Amino acid sequence: MTGVDDAYDELYERARHVGALSKVDEALYWDEQVTMPSGGAPARSAQRAAVATARHRALTGDRTGALVDRLGGASLGGERAALVRELARERRDAMRVPEDLVERLQTALSEAQPAWREARENDAFETFEPHLRRIVDLKREFADRFDHDSRFETLYAVGEFNEPYLPLSTVESVLDRLREELPPLIRAVRESHVDPPRLFEGSFPVADQRRLGRATLEYVGYDWDHGRFDEAPHPFSNGTPYDARVTTRFDESNLLAGLTSTLHEFGHATYTRGLPTEHLGTPLGEARSMVVHESQSRLWENHVGRSRAFWAGFLPTVADAFPALDVSVGEAYAAANRVSVGPLRGHADELTYHLHVLVRYEIERALVAGDLDVSEVPAVWNEKTDAYLGVTPETAAEGCLQDIHWSVGSVASFQNYTLGSVLAAQLFAAVRRDHPALDDRLEAGEFAPLREWLTEQVHRHGQRYETPELIERATGEALTADHFLRYVREKFGSLYDL
Amino acid sequence: MTGVDDAYDELYERARHVGALSKVDEALYWDEQVTMPSGGAPARSAQRAAVATARHRALTGDRTGALVDRLGGASLGGERAALVRELARERRDAMRVPEDLVERLQTALSEAQPAWREARENDAFETFEPHLRRIVDLKREFADRFDHDSRFETLYAVGEFNEPYLPLSTVESVLDRLREELPPLIRAVRESHVDPPRLFEGSFPVADQRRLGRATLEYVGYDWDHGRFDEAPHPFSNGTPYDARVTTRFDESNLLAGLTSTLHEFGHATYTRGLPTEHLGTPLGEARSMVVHESQSRLWENHVGRSRAFWAGFLPTVADAFPALDVSVGEAYAAANRVSVGPLRGHADELTYHLHVLVRYEIERALVAGDLDVSEVPAVWNEKTDAYLGVTPETAAEGCLQDIHWSVGSVASFQNYTLGSVLAAQLFAAVRRDHPALDDRLEAGEFAPLREWLTEQVHRHGQRYETPELIERATGEALTADHFLRYVREKFGSLYDL
Repeated sequence: MTGVDDAYDELYERARHVGALSKVDEALYWDEQVTMPSGGAPARSAQRAAVATARHRALTGDRTGALVDRLGGASLGGERAALVRELARERRDAMRVPEDLVERLQTALSEAQPAWREARENDAFETFEPHLRRIVDLKREFADRFDHDSRFETLYAVGEFNEPYLPLSTVESVLDRLREELPPLIRAVRESHVDPPRLFEGSFPVADQRRLGRATLEYVGYDWDHGRFDEAPHPFSNGTPYDARVTTRFDESNLLAGLTSTLHEFGHATYTRGLPTEHLGTPLGEARSMVVHESQSRLWENHVGRSRAFWAGFLPTVADAFPALDVSVGEAYAAANRVSVGPLRGHADELTYHLHVLVRYEIERALVAGDLDVSEVPAVWNEKTDAYLGVTPETAAEGCLQDIHWSVGSVASFQNYTLGSVLAAQLFAAVRRDHPALDDRLEAGEFAPLREWLTEQVHRHGQRYETPELIERATGEALTADHFLRYVREKFGSLYDL
Repeated sequence: MTGVDDAYDELYERARHVGALSKVDEALYWDEQVTMPSGGAPARSAQRAAVATARHRALTGDRTGALVDRLGGASLGGERAALVRELARERRDAMRVPEDLVERLQTALSEAQPAWREARENDAFETFEPHLRRIVDLKREFADRFDHDSRFETLYAVGEFNEPYLPLSTVESVLDRLREELPPLIRAVRESHVDPPRLFEGSFPVADQRRLGRATLEYVGYDWDHGRFDEAPHPFSNGTPYDARVTTRFDESNLLAGLTSTLHEFGHATYTRGLPTEHLGTPLGEARSMVVHESQSRLWENHVGRSRAFWAGFLPTVADAFPALDVSVGEAYAAANRVSVGPLRGHADELTYHLHVLVRYEIERALVAGDLDVSEVPAVWNEKTDAYLGVTPETAAEGCLQDIHWSVGSVASFQNYTLGSVLAAQLFAAVRRDHPALDDRLEAGEFAPLREWLTEQVHRHGQRYETPELIERATGEALTADHFLRYVREKFGSLYDL
């Protein structure tokens, strides 16, 4: 075997190859969601399966293994050790999953997506049920290949929507605190005499929302040379630092839905844009994890997009598109933070959102453990939604069919949204500490200081640090729900006069 | 080694994998040309290189070789033998090209494309020159790996824009006849007292052309569930039977350019749509060759789209979009076939087009042979254009920078357009033989009989037959320029009163 430097260079090139194939899949997914005609699915399914196979082979090949083994024993510097650590982890995980299981999963998912879309449109869970059953079975088969404490922990830690470094016990303790402390706060809000105006409900033509969406992205500094803005049934952002695209979904009757989703996806795209191009395609040039990604989207959606300072500067842009919204900053701010209990996670406010997550988390955990049958999902979904939120979805489309996640193979990932919110609050507190005049900048529409702080503390590191170390370095402490709970108590306490 | 049936099944799956990766590259190319933001190129270049590498590895891998060897000796039925023949050919060709050359070519092309676009915009050949030199050098290096009679023959026969089965001597003899017989016909046309109206020159807003383009595709029966219609700097069509997309380019001052390019690409898409889905991704489910592909686009562009019968039915659709074009069928038909000598191949009529091809063919042959230096291309281009057409391009943008081909690695392919026209005429004569009332159907806007004949005789066979056999079976004779020359003599003789 070659010397350490040569071995590292060769492994680095292999990492680039593997990473480029992941980005190819993202490009195919973008096309599938945004531009592909309805009849294109069978061919696209074969294409994505072929890319997954090629990536799997490159990662699990003998030569990659020899290089990882050679370098795992060497004492490398920080960045190099991180690249080897991440590639070794990905390889180890991939080795446990046989090629045919990867292909069966890909095929199942490509077939499940149109089925989910159709089932949601027709409000017919039974047509999606066999697809969901197949996905759960394959996910369980996948998890059985590993030796974590539970199947659920495997699915949480391994795979595309993974968080390999924050222990599941940390997740549980964060969720426990929210399960305990949010319901009384929500109760107090619902009993408050304050009733913020429903400014963003009504009729907002999609063409105007589209123009406002573009104006919003321009307002927060989106770079059109390195991105696009489109619509997708379930908004997402993907790509590379060179091409980080944003999608959103407009709801004619709810202006805030499209607006907050645009800012949310802008947050994801900003993370992608801030990754180091010199390490393009390697773990050092990739986002840390879904939890960290979600902290970026939540930070822009909530801590920026639902803040009084932001609305003070942004309101004229909105009023320009919708002259009826020529209201006071206070009214707009209150309306943007109106707590309203409903069946849809996608329309939820910052408080009730996490109870929607608990519903999904508990159902997924039971499905994966085998304690719940797929056929029982609609009923249990409705029961839990009622228990946590006091509302029962009237249709499956507004119930267990509302989210795209299961149909794209995302099982055991919903809790990451809540962890993202919690981390966003912690990061935003740290930015405030470093930038005491942050609100003034946000009010003036100057987002560069915030973006630069996030790039410096989070984005540019790629996967250089494991998640706990990244959080510790950026904020000075371990992941904690303190900042999130303080933030929502202060914000909603003040808004609702508690 | 396994039995013949098992070996064939395994090879078939490998063929699917290789073919799916080719289609992935087409999807990435479509995105690059249609939707990618300008800054996305570096990441896309890495992605396409990774896909090319993965495809190359799958094709040249030892297991593929063992299967091809095992089956090459077996006596297989027709379809099976064809699949093995095509895969063995692709593999043999790929084996001769080392992985690093593939990657260097991909990288060179990804960098050449924005450079070509910029050079054309700025009319600055010198900024594209180093890219073209690199491409020619790499193509020569590529050709040196093979043992055809000449480097040019290798580039003609091998690779993405290839025609492996029609001997280059056939090409030469077709081109010789056209070189001899077209100039006197063009001279007679130019000396004719007839001067068809310039109905399609003027000012045609692009938004209206876009609507007309969609209406045109609907008129000829394009299926929106399996396609899209977009704009690209250099129109193309690619995809699968499930998703065969059309692009075009609109010229505000020339309505015919966008219209004929739309019908041209529709012809390509119709071929793709007619390929057998049961063999998706394998050679049996792939288009025969570029010459055959081009015969399909030319047939729809010229034999349909520039026919009197077509205009008799289609004219109201045009007049609907552009009320000023409320003219007689005879006038529209004459205007659509106006022979006008100009510097641009893309705007050329059915006669002068092939002299543009001769210019490129002779330059490429000389470049590849080493008889011409890249720096001499602009001057030689202009000399030859003057000699063949009596016109000298005023700028490089209207001269040797007008075509995208070299920047996407297409060298030694222009003659395939002319061969496509020649084959289109031969096929159309055969359709007429089987459908004596074809003109009535075309006039009535009924295109299914024509489409079904083409699918039955050409599309559904994929690569089942070598090109000469496919032509012989569909038309009853070998490739010949007779039909094309008879067609243009009759058509232009009548139009120009010769």
